Amino acid sequence: MTLEELELLKQTAGLTTEDMRQLLLAGEVLGDQAGEMVDTWRGVIATQPHLARYAMRTDGSPYPEYGAASRPRFVQWINDLCAGDWDQEWLDYQETIGRRHTRAEKNKTDNADSPDHIPLRYVLGFLPVVILTTKDFLAKKGHSADEVEAMHAAWTKALTLAVTIWTAAYTREGDW
Amino acid sequence: MTLEELELLKQTAGLTTEDMRQLLLAGEVLGDQAGEMVDTWRGVIATQPHLARYAMRTDGSPYPEYGAASRPRFVQWINDLCAGDWDQEWLDYQETIGRRHTRAEKNKTDNADSPDHIPLRYVLGFLPVVILTTKDFLAKKGHSADEVEAMHAAWTKALTLAVTIWTAAYTREGDW
Repeated sequence: MTLEELELLKQTAGLTTEDMRQLLLAGEVLGDQAGEMVDTWRGVIATQPHLARYAMRTDGSPYPEYGAASRPRFVQWINDLCAGDWDQEWLDYQETIGRRHTRAEKNKTDNADSPDHIPLRYVLGFLPVVILTTKDFLAKKGHSADEVEAMHAAWTKALTLAVTIWTAAYTREGDW
Repeated sequence: MTLEELELLKQTAGLTTEDMRQLLLAGEVLGDQAGEMVDTWRGVIATQPHLARYAMRTDGSPYPEYGAASRPRFVQWINDLCAGDWDQEWLDYQETIGRRHTRAEKNKTDNADSPDHIPLRYVLGFLPVVILTTKDFLAKKGHSADEVEAMHAAWTKALTLAVTIWTAAYTREGDW
């Protein structure tokens, strides 16, 4: 994906200059909560066996080392997303993250023994949980309802854009 | 996709029994606004040439007949989504809608002369626009902020679930 294509995707998601400013503000609010956000989402995943298995060993036993290894990358990903400095390196990394959810590269980074592919429908289907729970984190530092709403709209757009880039790894050549 | 798989996807998206009730309420609020919602989204698409082209003739000229033919189906889709009666027929239809965005079946229903495939990234990338604009429509009938928020959360989950089903048409066998 090129930066020109990214620009069109930003337009598609409705990401304006004002949204990018709101996203930076969201980053300030979320920065020190990012670890807690990741843990919250993983907590939701842990309650659903059909999702939890992709973070477990292939034999279905717990695998805390795997979660611990990826956690700081996930936290950093939140902060990088909110920083909004989406250059070619960031873009390439989103494509890499996509592949790391699929049989192309899952488990490779951490040499993990876990199911080798997360179905696309579970990646996309989980978006609402990430969208909606983030609003609570945005509201935790005393901002007005309107301020939270504006940061949350920017987050919704940015998050969807990033996960949309991930989906390239799942799509037939030329169809993405 | 089976109804059992749909149930797992509902769980993934966080769709609770209370959300399904809120979705019905959203349907009551949105019912007579569904046409206006479709027109709003199409208005946004019309301002972006990289999106607008998929609703135009292959030579790039306007194609109002094509938009007019699909509009009542789109309106009905909103109402069916909010009705929440997601049986096998509804499920199969979501898969059909997915194919109708791709080179497998785009243009077929209306025998249209239009580009034959909408890239997945534009389908997914447009989700935030549909999510966020719907909140305004939900707020138009005098409900409290909390009531609007609850209906909107349900809408966000249901919409993402339906579009997630569409993506099966874009995905390699076994990866979805």
